[in-house]
Amino acid sequence: MKKQKTAIVPTRDENFPEWYQQVVKASDFAEHSPVRGCMVIKPWGYAVWENIQRVLDRKFKDLGHENAYFPLFIPLSYFQKEAKHVEGFAKECAVVTHHRLEPGKDGDLVPAGELEEPLVVRPTSEMVIGEMFSKWIESYRDLPLKINQWANVVRWEMRTRLFLRTAEFLWQEGHTAHATKEEADSHARLMLRVYADFAADYLAMPLIQGEKSEAERFPGADVTYCIEAMMQDGKALQAGTSHFLGQNFSKAADIVYTTKEGKEEFAWTTSWGVTTRFIGAMIMMHGDDDGMVLPPRIASSHIVIVPVVHDEEAKEAIEGYVDSLAGALRQITYFGAPLSVRIDSRDIRGGEKNWEWIKKGVPIRIEVGKRELEADTLFVKKRIRSPKEAEKIPRETFLSTVCDQLDEIHTHMYNKNEQFLQEHLVKIDSKEAFYEFFSSGKPGFVLSHFAGDTQVEEEIKKDLSVTVRCIPHHLDDGEGTCPFTGKPSQKRLVFAKAY
Amino acid sequence: MKKQKTAIVPTRDENFPEWYQQVVKASDFAEHSPVRGCMVIKPWGYAVWENIQRVLDRKFKDLGHENAYFPLFIPLSYFQKEAKHVEGFAKECAVVTHHRLEPGKDGDLVPAGELEEPLVVRPTSEMVIGEMFSKWIESYRDLPLKINQWANVVRWEMRTRLFLRTAEFLWQEGHTAHATKEEADSHARLMLRVYADFAADYLAMPLIQGEKSEAERFPGADVTYCIEAMMQDGKALQAGTSHFLGQNFSKAADIVYTTKEGKEEFAWTTSWGVTTRFIGAMIMMHGDDDGMVLPPRIASSHIVIVPVVHDEEAKEAIEGYVDSLAGALRQITYFGAPLSVRIDSRDIRGGEKNWEWIKKGVPIRIEVGKRELEADTLFVKKRIRSPKEAEKIPRETFLSTVCDQLDEIHTHMYNKNEQFLQEHLVKIDSKEAFYEFFSSGKPGFVLSHFAGDTQVEEEIKKDLSVTVRCIPHHLDDGEGTCPFTGKPSQKRLVFAKAY
Repeated sequence: MKKQKTAIVPTRDENFPEWYQQVVKASDFAEHSPVRGCMVIKPWGYAVWENIQRVLDRKFKDLGHENAYFPLFIPLSYFQKEAKHVEGFAKECAVVTHHRLEPGKDGDLVPAGELEEPLVVRPTSEMVIGEMFSKWIESYRDLPLKINQWANVVRWEMRTRLFLRTAEFLWQEGHTAHATKEEADSHARLMLRVYADFAADYLAMPLIQGEKSEAERFPGADVTYCIEAMMQDGKALQAGTSHFLGQNFSKAADIVYTTKEGKEEFAWTTSWGVTTRFIGAMIMMHGDDDGMVLPPRIASSHIVIVPVVHDEEAKEAIEGYVDSLAGALRQITYFGAPLSVRIDSRDIRGGEKNWEWIKKGVPIRIEVGKRELEADTLFVKKRIRSPKEAEKIPRETFLSTVCDQLDEIHTHMYNKNEQFLQEHLVKIDSKEAFYEFFSSGKPGFVLSHFAGDTQVEEEIKKDLSVTVRCIPHHLDDGEGTCPFTGKPSQKRLVFAKAY
Repeated sequence: MKKQKTAIVPTRDENFPEWYQQVVKASDFAEHSPVRGCMVIKPWGYAVWENIQRVLDRKFKDLGHENAYFPLFIPLSYFQKEAKHVEGFAKECAVVTHHRLEPGKDGDLVPAGELEEPLVVRPTSEMVIGEMFSKWIESYRDLPLKINQWANVVRWEMRTRLFLRTAEFLWQEGHTAHATKEEADSHARLMLRVYADFAADYLAMPLIQGEKSEAERFPGADVTYCIEAMMQDGKALQAGTSHFLGQNFSKAADIVYTTKEGKEEFAWTTSWGVTTRFIGAMIMMHGDDDGMVLPPRIASSHIVIVPVVHDEEAKEAIEGYVDSLAGALRQITYFGAPLSVRIDSRDIRGGEKNWEWIKKGVPIRIEVGKRELEADTLFVKKRIRSPKEAEKIPRETFLSTVCDQLDEIHTHMYNKNEQFLQEHLVKIDSKEAFYEFFSSGKPGFVLSHFAGDTQVEEEIKKDLSVTVRCIPHHLDDGEGTCPFTGKPSQKRLVFAKAY
């Protein structure tokens, strides 16, 4: 059988990691920058991040959070105040040591003006925000304090991959302080659900929600909640985390409040974040062998209209029709924003345009030529192929059903991935079968009982590059026996190879 | 006469710079961070930045710009490609030299993992964006290329002042590439007008538009256009710049395109930016001795409603009334966004609340007590005092006129400052009178003829701390004689002391 031609080479089956890189490139989402490990997010990719920001920002504000901005630099001494925290980040810190450039011996500029205290480029902001919280919080009246920041952070990485693992990335970090342990923990859980709902409702991304094992916890957290997504190769990707920090950071930064009764107590804090990684997850979940497939509710653009002009006489009429169509579509609001519509009038071949927009993953493409103009009909193609490759739809019908059609695409994408996830969640009850599953390269997550032994966890990681992805909040089917130790186990954990 | 009590001590007359710091603090806009020279922008101040972003971002996109994101770090070698550029920024660069922390001799962590090539934390992104443009641009079909970035930048400062001069600040930087000199220059001028219109229409800020003298130009630019605002102490503040970069950066970064005729040409580029400094300008232009005065179209919130509950019986009814009022107000759109309304139900004294919102500068405060509830009337106070300190306005009247009232406040603020500007623009025609004006400490800008001699410019700067603010685009009253050199002068320039 002859292999079908695909827009992306290699295909997912041939080489999934390389397929991913090629999709990012072909879709014009991002590229490597001259600075090792840093990426340039191009307009078509950045528009997705802007949509993610717009939706999440609204959700955060509706829950009473306010945005603020904290410094990029953290003095080394502040950073060291929480022992586990600094240990967790010390190996990946970009450090500023000088504040000037001066001509060196050979005339080239070299760093000068050494700082008395080196500054760490923030890998996360618990310490500096904690320091401010300790000034802002005096009494129970100041609690809860709920702050969010949209910012860039830096974690030095030796092996980088666009969106998934880069030295600099963009994120939001929420930081809250509460009067009680229960309230703080419940807030950390709430924010995890906000992420999970957002992923499902906007990115068409089913997820497993749960809690990290001790070994995989955020450095300094009491509990790390997480959302784990299954990529098309069956590997896991952590798409967001929410941490219940206990009183660890409030003790390190001295966040003390006076209770109603006049007692002094340490506050209970949380932090939670999602990053531009979310975009990497979206690509690896939805992309196909022809490139990007954008979930409609977060798409850089919803619709591209391509005027098809074969004779110059009809040109003006077609362009007028297309402009008016785009205008009518832009009046329609879809999930809180006007439909984003592009007209592609570039002077290049139609086939070239068609493939470009397929690779870029725009949900709906519309062609308008002389025939469509005369019939007041649109030639509509969807990125997710329906049985018929393309449909002729009367203009008015399309305008009145476009939101439903986008919703259908969304639901189709979600259901397809939910089915894939369910089909690749495998219950395993012996160590042999566990090792056999992951050694064979079969795609999927394993649900296995586990007694929580950190040493066993490390062994599994060393042997198979498999980690506990989470102690799931759902998926519970009762107690059992840990196949690795024979000890009793409270519930099955999720194990997988991960990005 | 007894001095009137003011919320801010000292007053503007007593000590303008210190008054400014106190307003920033009292309004809860920002504060210094533990990191020398970096600021923390607090929610009430950050909301203004978010509004500035929302409005400008829309304007940029309507003009065909797209947002993207470029790396925080610039390799030293890239940074050095444009000689004037690197010279202009070398003295204020934060330099990353290490990528790890390790325990030192005494056990404390010290920088480790020295980088082969130091990285400069971006003070601006011409070099790294130019590098990407050179990859993205091949032919005339790729032009114009119009990109914008919202980001943080770092310029090391020894003497810092919140919003006005900080080591790290937030900004947007637009970067465009064009096929012709005329198109690029005209785009740089267009973006200056976008800034000036925005300042006038949203920040109630009259400005002088013009061009910088050679000495004050952006390092590497052919022309720097600027907007200069007059503060209440008569000093100038540069609120934004737009640069026509000629072919300097396209030659440094090799941004070459093929013309229709198949020839290779260097592109013509521009860059333009406004920063969180805009907020400092807004404060120094509008603030009074009681604190912040927020221009309504950019205010953190438009309205604060304070329920006044004297007896517990009426509490529920008043709260219900206030909630419904806030709900009705939030349905109203004002300059592209719903009215932002806060309810202040905190359990503190009414007078304390009142002063807090005055200091924070909220345009309209509403009190609702039992009496107002019964009369279906609101007790309305404006931050800009009308002849009557407060008015009783029927609820329905208020709802139907609130946008007009906000517009009136805006116009009042703009006109007041336009009048101040006109009254403090002084034409001077002799060197003696020029020196006498600035030595006397009189507030204002001087319009003086000038023959463009850079050495004379330096002398004036040394003697008086006065600079050429701009060669104005308007204000032209013909040719004359330079009072410093006796040479003929084409037009009067604007001279002032500046922030």
